[in-house]
Amino acid sequence: MRVAIQGERGSFSHQAAIELVPGARVVACARSVEVFDAVDSGRAAAAVIPVENTLAGPVGEHLDLLRERDVFIYAELHLRIEHNLIAAPDTIGKRKQIKTIRQVLSHPVALDQCRNFFQRHRGVASVGFYDTAGAVKYVMANKLADTAAIASRQAAREYGGRVLLSGIEDDRQNFTRFFLIKKKGKRPQVIKSGKTSLVFSLQNVPGALFKALSVFALRDLDLSKIESRPVRGKPWEYMFFLDVLCGDDKVMDLALEHLEEVAGFVKVLGVYPQGK
Amino acid sequence: MRVAIQGERGSFSHQAAIELVPGARVVACARSVEVFDAVDSGRAAAAVIPVENTLAGPVGEHLDLLRERDVFIYAELHLRIEHNLIAAPDTIGKRKQIKTIRQVLSHPVALDQCRNFFQRHRGVASVGFYDTAGAVKYVMANKLADTAAIASRQAAREYGGRVLLSGIEDDRQNFTRFFLIKKKGKRPQVIKSGKTSLVFSLQNVPGALFKALSVFALRDLDLSKIESRPVRGKPWEYMFFLDVLCGDDKVMDLALEHLEEVAGFVKVLGVYPQGK
Repeated sequence: MRVAIQGERGSFSHQAAIELVPGARVVACARSVEVFDAVDSGRAAAAVIPVENTLAGPVGEHLDLLRERDVFIYAELHLRIEHNLIAAPDTIGKRKQIKTIRQVLSHPVALDQCRNFFQRHRGVASVGFYDTAGAVKYVMANKLADTAAIASRQAAREYGGRVLLSGIEDDRQNFTRFFLIKKKGKRPQVIKSGKTSLVFSLQNVPGALFKALSVFALRDLDLSKIESRPVRGKPWEYMFFLDVLCGDDKVMDLALEHLEEVAGFVKVLGVYPQGK
Repeated sequence: MRVAIQGERGSFSHQAAIELVPGARVVACARSVEVFDAVDSGRAAAAVIPVENTLAGPVGEHLDLLRERDVFIYAELHLRIEHNLIAAPDTIGKRKQIKTIRQVLSHPVALDQCRNFFQRHRGVASVGFYDTAGAVKYVMANKLADTAAIASRQAAREYGGRVLLSGIEDDRQNFTRFFLIKKKGKRPQVIKSGKTSLVFSLQNVPGALFKALSVFALRDLDLSKIESRPVRGKPWEYMFFLDVLCGDDKVMDLALEHLEEVAGFVKVLGVYPQGK
């Protein structure tokens, strides 16, 4: 199955795509909007997109695109973000000498998540690069002897790099949540212990959000997540993205009917099994 | 008064600092954490920080720092983000010929917000730069003849650039909200038509957020904003940042007492007049 991702081959999105769709053939897109276009046009049968990270927070652009585009969420995945020090095998030699490394390339966010490594290796410079997997690609293509990259294990596999050190991230509680999305087809069958993701807008009146949440609280439906996003063209108004711990059943249908009474706009973004 | 900002002189934060503190002497810091350090150490009497933008959404790092650090919000400002095409006066000449411009430098977010300009001027290349004001500084320092920058009016004033075109942003509903923060002193006096900003955590039980919001809804206190942020070290748990349209009065005190019954952790981040 062709699965669109944003970023280079070997990125964490690539790794997530393979876990969600074993044997996926990845379609790498430079920009997020191209990922959604690929699903729209049928160039890819599905897409895998990050929506939040436990350190950095939500990926707002992807939430906005989920609201705008005619797609549906069919699965979620919580991927642990493990950072690895990767270099070219030829130049490093069999003894994996980290001492020969003078500089390390990676995306600034990844470099910032590996501060302890740089404190332990004072002589090694950290150099910002546009992409984690792209840094591995660059090191390999240019056969750099004194340079390594920080990226996913998938990036080492993809470009033939060697992992010199694995798990060099400071905080192991670093996870990214990914969605598997496809064109909206027929509704999936009833999902036990599932989640429903939805987005709604509210009239700007006192207590509006409280009333909207009462729709779920009064039915004992548990929320696992709420996120607000600004409304384009209406400064200081917001849309609300909600994840409800309830699959596709009667109570949820009633709750959605009730929400439509309270909210100006409601869209169900997906119904899917709870990810590990 | 010395006011710390993140970014170069001439940035939108610089412009906000001058509007919030007329005559402010700006202390430019490279990183956000240094801005808070400057207030902590007394190197700056105050700081001005962006917290949300009407197109891009919240500035998560600044919300986290407001929660962690011992500061208090004393004012807010809604600054319209106006993008301007700025070049060196000598090289452009008196007739302000845009035709001589071959490339435009700016931060990728600013370039992306001026797509119509680049569609009208097909021969002009857009080139990513680390900072909007930094791009003006660079064009001026190197006396580049065929190069302009996109940045604030403040950047043109700061580095002696000339505004060739003003208001070239696609969307005029582009505002950034800034906070004026200082070390926490004595509580400010009662503020009519003010706002209270606070942050709280919740036990991970069904209906917890609904109960927390009931504290305000049952007292007819209007919320202007809710934002969730991930809790470091506890994947998929969140803190909630709330803005309540109520200054420092008795009803608000009762609501806060009630919130402490429901929430695990409550911190008042500031009490301040509603910004224009």
